[in-house]
Amino acid sequence: MNTSKNISAESASKIRSFRRETHTTDSLTNGILKGDKTALSRAITLIESTNATHTKQANEIIERCLTHKTKSIRIGITGVPGVGKSTFIESFGKRLTTEGHKVAVLAVDPTSTVTRGSILGDKTRMEELVKDANAFIRPSPSGSSLGGVARKTRETIVLCEAAGYNIILIETVGVGQSETAVHSMVDFFLLLKLAGAGDELQGIKRGIMEMADAIVINKSDGDNIQRAKKARVEFARALHLLKTQDNGWVPKVLACSALEDTGIKDVWDTIETYVATNTKNNFFNTKRQEQNKYWLLQTIEDQLKQQFYQDKKVKAQLQESINAVVNNKTSPFAAADKLLKLHSK
Amino acid sequence: MNTSKNISAESASKIRSFRRETHTTDSLTNGILKGDKTALSRAITLIESTNATHTKQANEIIERCLTHKTKSIRIGITGVPGVGKSTFIESFGKRLTTEGHKVAVLAVDPTSTVTRGSILGDKTRMEELVKDANAFIRPSPSGSSLGGVARKTRETIVLCEAAGYNIILIETVGVGQSETAVHSMVDFFLLLKLAGAGDELQGIKRGIMEMADAIVINKSDGDNIQRAKKARVEFARALHLLKTQDNGWVPKVLACSALEDTGIKDVWDTIETYVATNTKNNFFNTKRQEQNKYWLLQTIEDQLKQQFYQDKKVKAQLQESINAVVNNKTSPFAAADKLLKLHSK
Repeated sequence: MNTSKNISAESASKIRSFRRETHTTDSLTNGILKGDKTALSRAITLIESTNATHTKQANEIIERCLTHKTKSIRIGITGVPGVGKSTFIESFGKRLTTEGHKVAVLAVDPTSTVTRGSILGDKTRMEELVKDANAFIRPSPSGSSLGGVARKTRETIVLCEAAGYNIILIETVGVGQSETAVHSMVDFFLLLKLAGAGDELQGIKRGIMEMADAIVINKSDGDNIQRAKKARVEFARALHLLKTQDNGWVPKVLACSALEDTGIKDVWDTIETYVATNTKNNFFNTKRQEQNKYWLLQTIEDQLKQQFYQDKKVKAQLQESINAVVNNKTSPFAAADKLLKLHSK
Repeated sequence: MNTSKNISAESASKIRSFRRETHTTDSLTNGILKGDKTALSRAITLIESTNATHTKQANEIIERCLTHKTKSIRIGITGVPGVGKSTFIESFGKRLTTEGHKVAVLAVDPTSTVTRGSILGDKTRMEELVKDANAFIRPSPSGSSLGGVARKTRETIVLCEAAGYNIILIETVGVGQSETAVHSMVDFFLLLKLAGAGDELQGIKRGIMEMADAIVINKSDGDNIQRAKKARVEFARALHLLKTQDNGWVPKVLACSALEDTGIKDVWDTIETYVATNTKNNFFNTKRQEQNKYWLLQTIEDQLKQQFYQDKKVKAQLQESINAVVNNKTSPFAAADKLLKLHSK
């Protein structure tokens, strides 16, 4: 009998058991509610996992955290690469933690699988914030679909709020429809722009300007200050042409320099004004409720589509149907009926 | 034996048979291909019918017409009520028929069931065009869903083109998402606007300006001419801020008076330039192919959703799930999973 082997196996089992113990739903939830960053990180890892056991555990933790949410402000931040999002978040986040807020920085970047976490992946770009006890930074979850990535981030928000983070910043580079996804999970949506270089005349992706609650001209420093002033006038004029928001809010155009730390306070003042106004008229709460409903219906519709397009019978016929429709051999409606009948069989 | 009754019954049967005869798929299709307006109207009535036999017959006619399509230009026209859409179409349509074109005027108005055909219902607003041998005017199909109304109109386009109409004008008042539906079935999208009265500063529904291939300031006559000039400058400036279209087209801003018949030629010249440029770079054809594919996928997704939301088990649970999600009792994702499981059972 090989005693040492038996002992070793027992020990190993104990160690495994002990490790499992420290990751129970209870211990993770309690850790989160106490504001423990390690527990929070571990629970987010469960959300991000594709393992079914992890997903089940994650769902339990989320459900429990839902009833312990901190009153928070969720802020979406978008802008093309090079606009200085990381520097802005570093500067903006530091101001907030200095004022006593707890700040979580998340990201939605559906390309991160390919580019290995382009956003927030390089935390050195936020070297002050990353060391801050009152800040929690988490790179974008990876995933092949925007829906999946966005879902994980939205669930992470719940955990962060349960952990006491009262300001949630969600960054996106705006690939595909990622701004729309982020817009539908935040209270305030901020578009970062650069002055000069013709940037204010082009490059605004369709619909983005209309989502913005504020446009902030970043890098308004040195030679750029005059250009930033001109850009503010142009954007204000353009926003003026758009329909007023349902809540009566007129989007603001601001300028700042994250590098020189100027104008950052104005951004925060604007957000505070927005929140105060919208809390008073109850729009803040109504919008969150509508967002919850939106995510319920959106998830259903995404899943229905996924089930359809992953159906083997559909897969085998789809390309032929598309070709027939594209070449006017059959009408889109007749082809759709055919595919739907295949699916329901 | 009541001879007269028997004879009468026979006659009635013959008459019925004769009437049926004239409505066969063959006769209607042949009629359409000869440009017979009565056959065209009857076939459209089959498209609009909710009777399954009619739908089947309509589908056969559409499939046959698909291979006989005339080379056409499909133009979407939108603008708020009062902007003068009917007067514009009357004036624009007359110019086209005078130049030898055959013009079909259709509409997508999802509210027409309620308002009893607000658009084009009152054909007297187009009294010249309605008498024109080279024009065919058809009010919006009725229907409770935009999807249904839009589908019927899109199928009607195929029949009109098979009947030799080479210019298809599709009007919409822009209720809900109807502009998006019309935009996805036309080659050129035209937004009618009014100058003055603060209209250029507000009232532009989100996303509409970005769909426009041209903005036409209507009623640019009398006292309005100066205001129209100012509006042109403002709109041109605003359009300039938007991202360039994929085909490189820069949307034009024009002014016209449908009443005084000025500027109408410019609108047509612009559309001809657009078509010429886009035919050359093959964008015209590519866009139509993409639209066909869009309608295939859109129809599938609409049907999947309809099947889901009309599922009795889902119906019984949906409101409770929405309430739970809205009040943060459960996460949108957990609630969605629950409903999807009910549906697949």
